[in-house]
Amino acid sequence: MKTFSETPATANDSNLQSFVSETRSLVDAELDRLLPAESVSPAKVHAAIRWSMFAGGKRFRPLLVLAVGKTFGAAQEHLLATACALEMVHTYSLIHDDLPSMDNDELRRGRATCHIRFGEATAILAGDALQTIAFKTLSEDEKLSAVTRVHLIREIARASGTPHGMVAGQAGDLEAESREVGAQELENIHRLKTGALIIAAARCGAIIAGASETELAAVTDYAAQLGLLFQITDDLLDVTATAEAIGKTPGKDQRSKKATYPALYGIEATRQQLPSAHQSACASLDTLPRSTELLRAIADSIVERRA
Amino acid sequence: MKTFSETPATANDSNLQSFVSETRSLVDAELDRLLPAESVSPAKVHAAIRWSMFAGGKRFRPLLVLAVGKTFGAAQEHLLATACALEMVHTYSLIHDDLPSMDNDELRRGRATCHIRFGEATAILAGDALQTIAFKTLSEDEKLSAVTRVHLIREIARASGTPHGMVAGQAGDLEAESREVGAQELENIHRLKTGALIIAAARCGAIIAGASETELAAVTDYAAQLGLLFQITDDLLDVTATAEAIGKTPGKDQRSKKATYPALYGIEATRQQLPSAHQSACASLDTLPRSTELLRAIADSIVERRA
Repeated sequence: MKTFSETPATANDSNLQSFVSETRSLVDAELDRLLPAESVSPAKVHAAIRWSMFAGGKRFRPLLVLAVGKTFGAAQEHLLATACALEMVHTYSLIHDDLPSMDNDELRRGRATCHIRFGEATAILAGDALQTIAFKTLSEDEKLSAVTRVHLIREIARASGTPHGMVAGQAGDLEAESREVGAQELENIHRLKTGALIIAAARCGAIIAGASETELAAVTDYAAQLGLLFQITDDLLDVTATAEAIGKTPGKDQRSKKATYPALYGIEATRQQLPSAHQSACASLDTLPRSTELLRAIADSIVERRA
Repeated sequence: MKTFSETPATANDSNLQSFVSETRSLVDAELDRLLPAESVSPAKVHAAIRWSMFAGGKRFRPLLVLAVGKTFGAAQEHLLATACALEMVHTYSLIHDDLPSMDNDELRRGRATCHIRFGEATAILAGDALQTIAFKTLSEDEKLSAVTRVHLIREIARASGTPHGMVAGQAGDLEAESREVGAQELENIHRLKTGALIIAAARCGAIIAGASETELAAVTDYAAQLGLLFQITDDLLDVTATAEAIGKTPGKDQRSKKATYPALYGIEATRQQLPSAHQSACASLDTLPRSTELLRAIADSIVERRA
């Protein structure tokens, strides 16, 4: 069992690295094509969208769409627009979450947040427009049938809104600030705030590939554990890493009394939760009659992440 | 030709009144069904959504979906979810436009705006979630084929985002505050900010009814003139009406140096533009081999509106 402090460099790991960098180039090029140019009016809104979109994000949700889609045999060109739409939804949520009335963050991915750079009104409009462009992108993806497009839109809308999606998680997170939060509530907040969209990304990859209901269920379980791993490592990095490594102000969660795993369990006990989440993620893959090395390597890489 | 100051009470007018009140009841009941209950978590976000949604709005966009759909022979039950989705998009935009960093409005439809009542963070999340619920509603409308659903989503996304939709109009409006705006720019701002979604409402009604491309083009022209009529009367009401009549702070546009028709042309010259816009709206309908009384009555009613 790998632990948070090991740094293996297996063959899988180098395969994953090339998949990650190939994905990033593809997704960035497609995002550039899908988003209005800065020269197009309203120029400030488009500049703000691009400022936040091309700020060196990990492209984790697109990676998951592409990795799950590939695992189930979908063509890359059928996955790309959906991968980008998920990144747009994720980025719109970051722009709005950083606003003064929300998390009031000034630094994100190593540079000024959208409202610091472009002003609050433009940041709100940039987030709004980015959500719209995500659904527009999904509706216009002529490579997929209308039935598939409607399925993907439903999936992503459910995962990003309320009562069972991302916005519900952000609302719970804000509501929980500065008061005691139990284990159940913390898990619920994270499951909605980051888990739902990560699960949607994995499911969308499988849906595009025409996976069966049983396969979709296994992918959902896998992605739920991946979301948990991602959140636990995010919380740990906030208390243990430097600003340079994570590109945002560290210790921010603690100062704003955010509900986090380290705040609830302490750093060491939080680290000790990683192996079982990792094991659960891999166990979900065992039921699939597919080659799942890539998905296992992604689970490994999250346990080992440093930023 | 009717003018802004006449108050006719024709047979058409009373038919329209019953259509308007029937539409309002139907749409309000369906919105109530589609939106999460206040008791469902996140309760504050859902209360905020309902606060703004059930604040006595005119339901003009839903009316247009239902009226155009009916004109082209669509069943009411096929039109209702789309009508509600358009009202959700409109209401999300009002919630965000009222925010302190945007238009900074404290009164809307006769009561406190969303952020005054629920705080800024909740208002931002309520608007975000409402946009998501709109697209979720469209994707889940099992009464329509997947092809039609994708068509409607594309139509509404294009009309509500950038570069050719509502958010672009709001950005232009903010950008134009406190400086001179020419006739062309003013028309462009209004065409995007309110016109695009009104046109989308009319087109969606026609799309659901399976209208031809030629018919869609006529409906688009009609709705574009309707949007212009709507904006001109809105601007006039802002300078001439009382807060009680319009349910918001009158004279607000003028104080915040908003780009408006009366500011550019003066009140009388603005009034004089109504007959030609009304005539153009009706002329677009002349090409349709349909019974268009209802759509004409809607154009009449906007010219005569008092709130």
